[in-house]
Amino acid sequence: MTTTAARRDRQREQLIEAAERAIAGKGLAGLKARELAQEIGCSLGAIYNLVADMDELVLRVGSRTLARLDATLSAASPAVSFREQATEALVAVALAYCTFARDNLQLWRVLFEHRMAEGSTVPDWAVAEQMTMFRHILGPLGMLVPDRREEDRNLLGRTLFSAVHGVVAIGLEEKLIAVPRRELDRQIEGLVRLACRGLTIRD
Amino acid sequence: MTTTAARRDRQREQLIEAAERAIAGKGLAGLKARELAQEIGCSLGAIYNLVADMDELVLRVGSRTLARLDATLSAASPAVSFREQATEALVAVALAYCTFARDNLQLWRVLFEHRMAEGSTVPDWAVAEQMTMFRHILGPLGMLVPDRREEDRNLLGRTLFSAVHGVVAIGLEEKLIAVPRRELDRQIEGLVRLACRGLTIRD
Repeated sequence: MTTTAARRDRQREQLIEAAERAIAGKGLAGLKARELAQEIGCSLGAIYNLVADMDELVLRVGSRTLARLDATLSAASPAVSFREQATEALVAVALAYCTFARDNLQLWRVLFEHRMAEGSTVPDWAVAEQMTMFRHILGPLGMLVPDRREEDRNLLGRTLFSAVHGVVAIGLEEKLIAVPRRELDRQIEGLVRLACRGLTIRD
Repeated sequence: MTTTAARRDRQREQLIEAAERAIAGKGLAGLKARELAQEIGCSLGAIYNLVADMDELVLRVGSRTLARLDATLSAASPAVSFREQATEALVAVALAYCTFARDNLQLWRVLFEHRMAEGSTVPDWAVAEQMTMFRHILGPLGMLVPDRREEDRNLLGRTLFSAVHGVVAIGLEEKLIAVPRRELDRQIEGLVRLACRGLTIRD
């Protein structure tokens, strides 16, 4: 790599890290191109040699958030060798998701609240990164309901994720009275167990 | 009522309606005090004789959205006289919620995305309005699990609402590939039936 390319990469990394700190502090509203330029010591215009636009910058920060979330969920996922362990694994992943969201509130929110500028779509690499997260759910789900078609299981995985996400999002919302941590964990665990029970018990 | 007070009330109503149109068009980003003042024919400063601040204006628009949502859910709720009808009622309310969110996307989003200015809290009247929505869930839930303590049912109602909300929110998100309407309805119905099944079937 030439020295120029290496310097550019290093500066790009600094830009993404500065954007991450800004979002972690104040959310998307805290992201000001002018302040970032100042922080990494370049001109405002030079930022757009490092990323195409602010949307890409937000997605690159999201990519780092997703990588940390992925590591957190991997660490929390127990090995599942028997069907009976699948529910416990799904509960563990859901609770770890909630803890991550709480500990990284602004960065996690941005994963969902950021919308592309009109006319732009999320690039494939970012969609692919989001999709790999589902393996933490689809793995245990495959043990829990092995007879279902893959298509059904994928839909079910998406539904379960969205449902847990909804409980976490509303629970961590500042607007209504914040739900105490223990109660929120109880809600999440209750929901996952309820769904697993509905999926496996015979009439 | 004096003529002055009546005129003020009428202008306040016009302001809220103008804000509603602005949010319905472009979300919170479309809400500009200067443009609203121009539209209702008053000075920028005069707006703050009509509402305390932009937070109050957004909450007043939210109040109108909630009233329409409440009417929609009431119309969709079948009468529940037997325990067996409770699941159907919960499914109907969840699907009506999804349809409302789809048909009022920007106004609905603002109910959840708007955050008060730092140091401010949501006034009691707005919290109370949000809370009354839960009766559409708690009614059928009381028929479905009459033996549970009220406190448990309230928590369960909150969990169910949040779970359905999560599926709707992720399903209507522009970011990932939009979920087709029929598939989203299937997800929502599946989730509610799964939860009801988990709640009522004995081991």
